[in-house]
Amino acid sequence: MSTIVVVGSGMMGSALAVPLCENGHHVRLVGSPLDREIVEHGRKTNEHLTMKRMMPENVSWYYIEEVKEAMEGADLYINGVSSFGLDWFIQEMLPQIPEDLPVLSVTKGMVNYPDGSLKSYPEIFEESTEKKISFNAIGGPCTSYELADKDFTEVTFCGRDMTTLRWIKSLFETEYYNISLSTDVRGVECAVAMKNAYALGVSLAVGMSYKREGKEFEHYNSQAALFGQSVMEMIHLLELCGGDASNIRLLSGDLYVTVFGGRTRKIGTLLGTGMNFQEAMERLSGVTLESIVIATRTAEAIRALIANGKVKAEDFPLLLHVDELINQGKTVNVPWKAFEYELEK
Amino acid sequence: MSTIVVVGSGMMGSALAVPLCENGHHVRLVGSPLDREIVEHGRKTNEHLTMKRMMPENVSWYYIEEVKEAMEGADLYINGVSSFGLDWFIQEMLPQIPEDLPVLSVTKGMVNYPDGSLKSYPEIFEESTEKKISFNAIGGPCTSYELADKDFTEVTFCGRDMTTLRWIKSLFETEYYNISLSTDVRGVECAVAMKNAYALGVSLAVGMSYKREGKEFEHYNSQAALFGQSVMEMIHLLELCGGDASNIRLLSGDLYVTVFGGRTRKIGTLLGTGMNFQEAMERLSGVTLESIVIATRTAEAIRALIANGKVKAEDFPLLLHVDELINQGKTVNVPWKAFEYELEK
Repeated sequence: MSTIVVVGSGMMGSALAVPLCENGHHVRLVGSPLDREIVEHGRKTNEHLTMKRMMPENVSWYYIEEVKEAMEGADLYINGVSSFGLDWFIQEMLPQIPEDLPVLSVTKGMVNYPDGSLKSYPEIFEESTEKKISFNAIGGPCTSYELADKDFTEVTFCGRDMTTLRWIKSLFETEYYNISLSTDVRGVECAVAMKNAYALGVSLAVGMSYKREGKEFEHYNSQAALFGQSVMEMIHLLELCGGDASNIRLLSGDLYVTVFGGRTRKIGTLLGTGMNFQEAMERLSGVTLESIVIATRTAEAIRALIANGKVKAEDFPLLLHVDELINQGKTVNVPWKAFEYELEK
Repeated sequence: MSTIVVVGSGMMGSALAVPLCENGHHVRLVGSPLDREIVEHGRKTNEHLTMKRMMPENVSWYYIEEVKEAMEGADLYINGVSSFGLDWFIQEMLPQIPEDLPVLSVTKGMVNYPDGSLKSYPEIFEESTEKKISFNAIGGPCTSYELADKDFTEVTFCGRDMTTLRWIKSLFETEYYNISLSTDVRGVECAVAMKNAYALGVSLAVGMSYKREGKEFEHYNSQAALFGQSVMEMIHLLELCGGDASNIRLLSGDLYVTVFGGRTRKIGTLLGTGMNFQEAMERLSGVTLESIVIATRTAEAIRALIANGKVKAEDFPLLLHVDELINQGKTVNVPWKAFEYELEK
């Protein structure tokens, strides 16, 4: 049996304890500096405070001051912080991770550079240390609470080395947690990141229906139109990132699950009713939205590539509209006609 | 202004009258032999009996005996019958259609041949007559009642000639009805057909959740896993049909809308709860299910190609499971592990 240390005891990092513990492994859940209440509550009750689920018996809880102790003898380090904790992980945690402790990261997103290039987090981690740590990451459609509830789930673990990936998979795999493996890190992470921006885009149609009907009633033609357009634009983006085309599976499934869950759908729906971004964010006061950061970064990268003449604005009408909503104070006005195409075969 | 004759006054054929009439055209709705009650009710009230919507003012209603009169002076013939009406269209209607009257078909599906090849309806129509009629068809995510309600919709018209397609588009295009054009008839029709089988596949997860929770509660991880697997298998099928890869937009959007609407979702959900096909069909007594026919045909084609060594069974685990459920009396047992893959880049 192995020992896995999870640093960052948010919902996704913690949910991973469910399949791990089912396989008999011991999980040490370490709260980040933002997770003190989660650890305090967990130590008393073994319930996860924000996920509102009892954790398996072979979970132990640690405060961040105890992270060294938690890492002792661990076989795998799970980086459970969100992309807002990226700098903290690089500056505070990375120096403490020994070279022979592989890392599996749940952090979603990519970072954009002024030339329009996008880089995945595992790549950034590699560049941030001289140690030869094995950095791996999880992609694919998976909400934390449904994993904790043992719903059937298909994810992809990515990293540079297939042998390491197979070993990590062996720790996690259960009847309900199904794991594909990919050495296409850029492709998997690009897919994971982008679907946030587009889930917001598809959700605009939900808000538009609500407004038109004056109640919570959904139309699916318009959602489907935005879904199809999203898939087309994401395939373009995947090519631009240098990712393999087969990541379309992750892209489409992940977009699907994100449209149905949580905060990204909420902000998209509010924007769809005609609110501007400031009004919508006030409605969701206190909520942190990775999707906003990710959409903005992706749009910034695309705008840089358009400026350099490397891509055409007309290939990304939906992403650019989402960016207008988030960053330019505009209200919803989906460019439906820009989605039309002519294909001569 | 033009005159459009719609033969087959089911929901989809009739819903097309909404954008056409908005553009000032006159629509002659001709009931098939199965649509007598729809025509009778429509003549009295101008309401569409099954769609339960008032039809636009410039719609006229015709019984099938009046089809010659309805075709007189028409500029476009819309074939509004379902795939169950395919033979009727070929035998009864096609001989009456003059060579200079273009046809636009809403009929969904493909026909499979013993060697595993699949052919689209427009191709079959061409082979069924010596007349040089222009056969075109509609693909893409569009439910009839949402089109009638003027929800924003993106569809694709396909046919052999772009000039004809542009003219047909000019009759239909409105603010809410957005039309792309494609000469890749095989690709569009293949996409349209296949999504039925896979929508049933994705809906299995809905039924599995209902059963597990003992109430109508949905999990999305499992739906998303099936959605992603569907997209992968459909891309393979599209290649096998010789369709262009860009039809993925239609595929994914159309799958999305079909998962949320109507009878295909219902049968998939019932099968997902563990019923066998016979039990599920008894629950839906009297309902005609094109999706069942389409799934069966596609699976038959794939089984023929597997037998010929042209494709591998492991590339289509979901389709083959759907076929087992429909045609081999099995109960739900989704092959989750068969969806796992390893990608070395």
